Amino acid sequence: MRNSLSVDKVYILWVLLRQAKDAVFKATEKELRQYGISPEEAAVLSVVQALGNKAIPAEISRWLLREPHTVSGILSRMEKKGLLRKTKDLDRKNLVRVSLTDKGQQAYYQSAKLESFRQIISSLSEDKRQQLSSWLKTLRERALKELGVDQEPLFPPSQ
Amino acid sequence: MRNSLSVDKVYILWVLLRQAKDAVFKATEKELRQYGISPEEAAVLSVVQALGNKAIPAEISRWLLREPHTVSGILSRMEKKGLLRKTKDLDRKNLVRVSLTDKGQQAYYQSAKLESFRQIISSLSEDKRQQLSSWLKTLRERALKELGVDQEPLFPPSQ
Repeated sequence: MRNSLSVDKVYILWVLLRQAKDAVFKATEKELRQYGISPEEAAVLSVVQALGNKAIPAEISRWLLREPHTVSGILSRMEKKGLLRKTKDLDRKNLVRVSLTDKGQQAYYQSAKLESFRQIISSLSEDKRQQLSSWLKTLRERALKELGVDQEPLFPPSQ
Repeated sequence: MRNSLSVDKVYILWVLLRQAKDAVFKATEKELRQYGISPEEAAVLSVVQALGNKAIPAEISRWLLREPHTVSGILSRMEKKGLLRKTKDLDRKNLVRVSLTDKGQQAYYQSAKLESFRQIISSLSEDKRQQLSSWLKTLRERALKELGVDQEPLFPPSQ
């Protein structure tokens, strides 16, 4: 099986996708630690920032492809850390809106710097990065279709 | 910041890498559920299979880029499920070797089928997949270097 695996390029691609993402996020994790946030929290910050006044837990959960109860736990933890604020909608009392506090906003700017990733990605030319982005987008769209998610994430914005 | 973000292609690429991997793995998760294993367990199966008689917890942890205590938990869970076997090395009693049981071997073959991913990846031509693999490998290598990991994973094998 080891020999037949070495020619199964689809399997290799699947493993590489995981390894590349994991290695990149591990490097990011190291960088973010100095700001006291995890890559997961950085992802939430970016989604809350991008959603603006549409940031409600269900929507954040959909964007992050995480279960609502998982997201709920992360949001509570981030609220305790003073990164987020949860407010009840004035018109629909059962609707909770999530927004960034000043501290959260600052953490967001810091996390968006991504110095380690800029270092890592500098190994690919501008053209290659553009291609890579477009293919990753294709994979994301096809995977979401496979999952029965009809509306793709609005972030990052289409260009 | 939203406007300036929409032109920060490096940040977008970072987000896309996460989203593409997460969406693909979420689709894989759905597929693997029928075999009773998680994508994380499938990753362990592939590493144990690839490492052969070099499969010891420390090595598995290094390959998966996961903390030893996390891997230790996963390995115990998988042992309980009958997927793995832990045996003490005859010469070095404090050394534990991990191998696949018949059930684990079968789960490995099933998980390597990756039908959902084959469906997803069919949207990219053979040439593009090859390119994508090579760039993901570059990112992985650079990220590992950033992390101070000098020896890169031996799997997938170089081609």
